[in-house]
Amino acid sequence: MPGRGPIDEPVPEHCALFTDLYELKMAQSYVAEGMAETAVFSLFVRRLPEERNYLLACGQERVLSLLENLRFDEEDIAYLRSIRQLDPGFVDWLRAFRFHGEVYAVPEGTPVFANEPIMEIVAPIAEAQIIETLVMNEVTLATVLASKAARVVTAAAGRTVVDFAARRMMGVEAAVEGARAFYIAGVESTSNVLAGKRYGIPVAGTMAHSFVQAHESEAAAFRAFAENFPGTTLLVDTYDTMQGVRSAIALATDPERPIEIGGIRLDSGDLGALAREARAALDAAGLQAVKIFASSGLDEYRIADLVAAGAPIDGFGVGTAMGVADDAPALDIVYKLCAYGGRGRTKLAEGKPIRRGRKQVFRHREDGQD
Amino acid sequence: MPGRGPIDEPVPEHCALFTDLYELKMAQSYVAEGMAETAVFSLFVRRLPEERNYLLACGQERVLSLLENLRFDEEDIAYLRSIRQLDPGFVDWLRAFRFHGEVYAVPEGTPVFANEPIMEIVAPIAEAQIIETLVMNEVTLATVLASKAARVVTAAAGRTVVDFAARRMMGVEAAVEGARAFYIAGVESTSNVLAGKRYGIPVAGTMAHSFVQAHESEAAAFRAFAENFPGTTLLVDTYDTMQGVRSAIALATDPERPIEIGGIRLDSGDLGALAREARAALDAAGLQAVKIFASSGLDEYRIADLVAAGAPIDGFGVGTAMGVADDAPALDIVYKLCAYGGRGRTKLAEGKPIRRGRKQVFRHREDGQD
Repeated sequence: MPGRGPIDEPVPEHCALFTDLYELKMAQSYVAEGMAETAVFSLFVRRLPEERNYLLACGQERVLSLLENLRFDEEDIAYLRSIRQLDPGFVDWLRAFRFHGEVYAVPEGTPVFANEPIMEIVAPIAEAQIIETLVMNEVTLATVLASKAARVVTAAAGRTVVDFAARRMMGVEAAVEGARAFYIAGVESTSNVLAGKRYGIPVAGTMAHSFVQAHESEAAAFRAFAENFPGTTLLVDTYDTMQGVRSAIALATDPERPIEIGGIRLDSGDLGALAREARAALDAAGLQAVKIFASSGLDEYRIADLVAAGAPIDGFGVGTAMGVADDAPALDIVYKLCAYGGRGRTKLAEGKPIRRGRKQVFRHREDGQD
Repeated sequence: MPGRGPIDEPVPEHCALFTDLYELKMAQSYVAEGMAETAVFSLFVRRLPEERNYLLACGQERVLSLLENLRFDEEDIAYLRSIRQLDPGFVDWLRAFRFHGEVYAVPEGTPVFANEPIMEIVAPIAEAQIIETLVMNEVTLATVLASKAARVVTAAAGRTVVDFAARRMMGVEAAVEGARAFYIAGVESTSNVLAGKRYGIPVAGTMAHSFVQAHESEAAAFRAFAENFPGTTLLVDTYDTMQGVRSAIALATDPERPIEIGGIRLDSGDLGALAREARAALDAAGLQAVKIFASSGLDEYRIADLVAAGAPIDGFGVGTAMGVADDAPALDIVYKLCAYGGRGRTKLAEGKPIRRGRKQVFRHREDGQD
């Protein structure tokens, strides 16, 4: 099972107003009715996506930080007055809003299955209601992405996986929180510098095709870049891949001014065949230490195929498919009231079994296997 | 064609460090080599996703605001020094970094097709390189979501569409920027209060199942809520849908204490059949003005089916499928160097035709049709 433990969470931005309007309306009604007893809400996934046989629970640490810092500021209050859908007295009540509840959760990076609580919120009902949207959103974001990344890491079977997804993800926050989720799932480093800063994740990256194109020749681009960054990886497929490999070899074995090359990156074509051909050429030139990295539309299936075929690839840069979890970008996640005032509550609906009240998860071994 | 014009963009958060590390490495090399001429980068989608016959370009306004405010602060500089992958002199150079380039773009809400530039960046090459990741990320986020929403709005054929997606989206930023993109695509309102505040989008919402469950009976929950919010919509399917409809009717027609009801919402079951049965019951009770809203796993296909079947539904709440654009959550979007120092540049790759140099898009009519 891939995965790391949780990593540090800085104080996050202000987002008390990130809630569905109906949460505030329900809270207003609870306050007006004097309904202030403790509610238990359970956050779980009703069904695993078809393409997943487990999820890697993630995002709980961020939820805790967000809840600790949740405040409605005067700008929020002014906006809520302006929409004229809430009672002014209730809007004033929000000024003093703090989350006083208790949160129970499985640790980040824990594999979870359908109908197992990822998190349980125990709090006065209005408080538990107001935070629903935020809690669901953050756990969804991180769990969807960690779960996809865990599959990619498993497929890579010990080879390096680097997160290249920043440009294709759903905004800056998704990319930064996603890089953290990927890291928890076992991804080794990220191209995303802001994620590196915020979470101390190792950052990696070298050059793009545009860099080669901007120079008069590929060889000139390689030399300029490697002089700036000795030991770097060179992107060899801008024009003709094997010609690019030969240019890299020429640079590393230049009898006059050799420059150390750490690796080459293949970003198009038949990655398996090109990796084999490049490996042979590098080895023949005595460059056994130069690594081969591959990118270009990779996901767990393509990586598994390359690994199974014995392609001599040392690491994979994975972008779009991991960045948006393209085959399962959402979860059927719910935040269900399971008790109020100490009494179990349930909604009846066909095909949706729910156990009332608070839960405890047990794992048992089957035939001596975890 | 659905769609609104652009809406106001507030000053966005600090995100200069949101870049792939290789952008900074390439920029360092350009600076070291004295390569300071103007580059033209073109942002376009190479292929439409299979499930799209057009895209609604979105996100350009946010890109402009981000570029105007891009600065590396002292914390960013300290972090970049700490990773020891960049030259300290170059890191100092970033202190004074400002984006001085020009940006050309189609207006937000413009339908675009494959290989048409959504945006062209004309700037000193190091500047244009550093912003690549951010530009691609923000345009991808908004365009993916606006393009999905445009299909939902088209399917609804004039009926109201409300954004219910906040909880299932990829973080707070995706949800707020997404709500804006949905609105530009013609969605009428959002449940997302922070999006309402940031962009002045109308906010909407009523009650959840948990509210009904928390009360001693559905009828008690309906009365409490409607007394707080006269004219509200009641969620009728927590226990038995038609019993819920009858409870709503009883409340609205109570001879002693009638309360105005604005609508009912169906959130499970056979929405078409239930809407017909509910409409008949409401009409029989003289409640022709009470509207019927539907939600529950809706997307453009299910909405089109309901509309085609003549289901008496006045509005749709759309969540997950629109919120993550589940059938096409990413774009094959590229940021290609097409000129440097006034000379066209291109990368050769099979099946990827690129025209060199700057572009201009023309629309022509075919047989008198737009």
